[in-house]
Amino acid sequence: MTNTQLTLVQIDNYGPWTVTPEPRREVDLQTLQSRLYADLSQLVGNRDGYVFFTRFDNMIAVTNGLDLDDHARMQESIRNRYPVTVSLGVATGTTPVHALSDATGRLQDAGSAQDKSRREILGGRTIDETFRTEEDVQLAHFDVNDATGKYTDQLNAFDSFIHIEQAYAALMRYMREAHDSLSFFVGGDNVISVCPELDAEAYEDAIDHVVAEVDVELKVGVGRGETAHAAGMAAKHALEECRANGSAVELGF
Amino acid sequence: MTNTQLTLVQIDNYGPWTVTPEPRREVDLQTLQSRLYADLSQLVGNRDGYVFFTRFDNMIAVTNGLDLDDHARMQESIRNRYPVTVSLGVATGTTPVHALSDATGRLQDAGSAQDKSRREILGGRTIDETFRTEEDVQLAHFDVNDATGKYTDQLNAFDSFIHIEQAYAALMRYMREAHDSLSFFVGGDNVISVCPELDAEAYEDAIDHVVAEVDVELKVGVGRGETAHAAGMAAKHALEECRANGSAVELGF
Amino acid sequence: MTNTQLTLVQIDNYGPWTVTPEPRREVDLQTLQSRLYADLSQLVGNRDGYVFFTRFDNMIAVTNGLDLDDHARMQESIRNRYPVTVSLGVATGTTPVHALSDATGRLQDAGSAQDKSRREILGGRTIDETFRTEEDVQLAHFDVNDATGKYTDQLNAFDSFIHIEQAYAALMRYMREAHDSLSFFVGGDNVISVCPELDAEAYEDAIDHVVAEVDVELKVGVGRGETAHAAGMAAKHALEECRANGSAVELGF
Amino acid sequence: MTNTQLTLVQIDNYGPWTVTPEPRREVDLQTLQSRLYADLSQLVGNRDGYVFFTRFDNMIAVTNGLDLDDHARMQESIRNRYPVTVSLGVATGTTPVHALSDATGRLQDAGSAQDKSRREILGGRTIDETFRTEEDVQLAHFDVNDATGKYTDQLNAFDSFIHIEQAYAALMRYMREAHDSLSFFVGGDNVISVCPELDAEAYEDAIDHVVAEVDVELKVGVGRGETAHAAGMAAKHALEECRANGSAVELGF
Repeated sequence: MTNTQLTLVQIDNYGPWTVTPEPRREVDLQTLQSRLYADLSQLVGNRDGYVFFTRFDNMIAVTNGLDLDDHARMQESIRNRYPVTVSLGVATGTTPVHALSDATGRLQDAGSAQDKSRREILGGRTIDETFRTEEDVQLAHFDVNDATGKYTDQLNAFDSFIHIEQAYAALMRYMREAHDSLSFFVGGDNVISVCPELDAEAYEDAIDHVVAEVDVELKVGVGRGETAHAAGMAAKHALEECRANGSAVELGF
Repeated sequence: MTNTQLTLVQIDNYGPWTVTPEPRREVDLQTLQSRLYADLSQLVGNRDGYVFFTRFDNMIAVTNGLDLDDHARMQESIRNRYPVTVSLGVATGTTPVHALSDATGRLQDAGSAQDKSRREILGGRTIDETFRTEEDVQLAHFDVNDATGKYTDQLNAFDSFIHIEQAYAALMRYMREAHDSLSFFVGGDNVISVCPELDAEAYEDAIDHVVAEVDVELKVGVGRGETAHAAGMAAKHALEECRANGSAVELGF
Repeated sequence: MTNTQLTLVQIDNYGPWTVTPEPRREVDLQTLQSRLYADLSQLVGNRDGYVFFTRFDNMIAVTNGLDLDDHARMQESIRNRYPVTVSLGVATGTTPVHALSDATGRLQDAGSAQDKSRREILGGRTIDETFRTEEDVQLAHFDVNDATGKYTDQLNAFDSFIHIEQAYAALMRYMREAHDSLSFFVGGDNVISVCPELDAEAYEDAIDHVVAEVDVELKVGVGRGETAHAAGMAAKHALEECRANGSAVELGF
Repeated sequence: MTNTQLTLVQIDNYGPWTVTPEPRREVDLQTLQSRLYADLSQLVGNRDGYVFFTRFDNMIAVTNGLDLDDHARMQESIRNRYPVTVSLGVATGTTPVHALSDATGRLQDAGSAQDKSRREILGGRTIDETFRTEEDVQLAHFDVNDATGKYTDQLNAFDSFIHIEQAYAALMRYMREAHDSLSFFVGGDNVISVCPELDAEAYEDAIDHVVAEVDVELKVGVGRGETAHAAGMAAKHALEECRANGSAVELGF
């Protein structure tokens, strides 16, 4: 049974800030967002968690191994170095979807994402050290079969991207609806899914669905671990096995 | 008539590098990618261009106002500060799609994106200063109507994201196919499209298409200018007018 | 009795790299160095240690609370994101000078700082959790009395800096020779000294010495703790007391 | 005759901010300062200027080639991405000292560096394009003879640093007093001096002075150019000639 700890990172009142007193330079917003994401990646990653950029103003992190003090330190570090602040909702659950719903609820209960007076909420529960296991996190690392040969080296860069993007859109919706999983594009032709305890058949089903819907072929390596990093590295190694074997699904456990 | 200058930024042989000698820590890859993007945003933005992260290993930039020396300086700066190098293909065209096809071809002709010996290609043509006009770049800035009220404050953070993502997937494909435009998600609920000379009807058509396909309502401000920054700021101001007026399309020219 | 754990961070073969194949752009070197320092500050700081930039190619860190695995993770993260690698020597001692001598020796024994084949050394010993105490680290936070009123608002910016710099040069040499302490300029008019167990008299002596040598008046707050962060925050609060009381030395323990 | 354009970058009301409402984490301040410096280096360097970190809260830049609009864009970019703002004073002069005095005066006349209501001053004059020449900027790049062999590989890392630091303190004061030059430590064993039109004798005199005062041997390459980058690269190449020839002073013009 997985026990994923998820953190919702939400920039406080960000939308209004970007247009006050008038619209800010887009390149500065892009720089701010991507650096904030990079910093959170390092802060969470330093304790073996993962952060996904998602919408940038709302980021989702797998934080097994981080307690509330670690979260408070991140919140403080962002406040000290950025012109914006972040709220953090933390929760755990047997499926990532349940965990995220609880984490989101923590922030929604405190006020709107665009409430001027709702700042730096920090709420929720983390997994007690004594209850952590090596099966808490299950991650799946998907990529597109021969994306370079079929797309990048053949089509213009946007048409290549259309294929990747349509595959991601199909996969992320299907994994959410059919398999209670949260799937994130992580660059290139890669998608990482945060999953409950799924078996190989579930992944085959998802790959079949994407081929049927948008005609893009995926493969996937799956890993488990006490932390996102442990599960993610196992998934990466399993994906390397797919490459070596020509297989579509490899479980690294 | 628009005359968009587009640059394809491609990290050289990136995929293989990420798994050599074995898979690298995901958080470090995420940090590398997002900081490289942030740096390019500043370097290009400093001369009033825009960069879109796209797939991160392949980024697309609107570079009206930058000549080949400016591109060479960026390439050198990345080489001096990152463990990877980038190739740059530059081209212009009356539609963004034509320009990007040419820019992509420059790199494809020099070798595969995963060719070990193809490094730091810099090729293409920029617009001569004397031919630049204030109608060279047309950008459209879309956002989702009341995304915070309808999604962010109501659904869990991933389900909100699904709506944004499906809207983006539908919009980017349709704008490409029907209107020769390149559309990029830029965070939050925002999408920026790099367009040829389109009129209000074209944008209404795209918005109608997205509602019909995925039931998400968009609005859009459109701007023109000599540079991406000028066009983008005009588009942002036009979008503010949509907010003020409750209109779906505003042209800032 | 203090028990400081110090880490010497040395960029491998950096000097030759900066001029190979020919001298690199200075602004890129400055960016590389200062960002590497910023990243190390966050990585070490995330576990309550401090890093000082010192010469940038050789940085000195107070790492009580970090074990060798934490060091290895930092080393890996730098390798994954920078065009250079770092070697790390770690040691402890009853004075910071002894600890640093041991830490330096670890790297010197493995080869020259400009040896092409000496890369990513990681050696030394950290303090076992069971032996850590709240008196392990003693830090002193100095600043210049009324630097803004006397210098910044009166002289040109370089002449102000000359006073700060001469004070730092005098203080850092004297604290090393007379009090076995390592003193680092940290920006503005601030210097942080990593000290053995010193009493108020020692700090008064150092302040007197600086006035006599370069006619700049300092004050200092001193703190102790299990980590650099704990000791440093105590020192900062003690320095605030100096400001409130007009006193020259305050001990926060 | 040189015609150096200097910009004083001063973080507004920074000292009070660092301790309000109570002292902020030192590692966050260090990260903020060094990244702000890195960003300015890229923004100014993108137009061939140089920035020196100096005290971090007061930085000095050689900005030949940047006009007031370029300065305004930097100021805006910092405001959009940092929790602090900067004021910029710009001036030119036949000696760097005169230029800096004028630039500093621009800010001092507008209020104290710790005045709460003095924010984002932007004032001064830049050199008109038509008056710029290839002799406007003269830079000298000093380093320590065999610093690695004599210090880094022999002494503990702090004792090596003491030698570098004492040499810098002696050089920066003497170059200011005797030769109207502004000298900045730039990491490793390197110092860059912004000079008026000085000949080889002046540099020999400075090197002799440093040997006599602190017994550290320097060498220096000197360059001239229309911008800091051009002058600095010429100086670096001249310094390479010193290395090749064993000479103490080489003029690259």
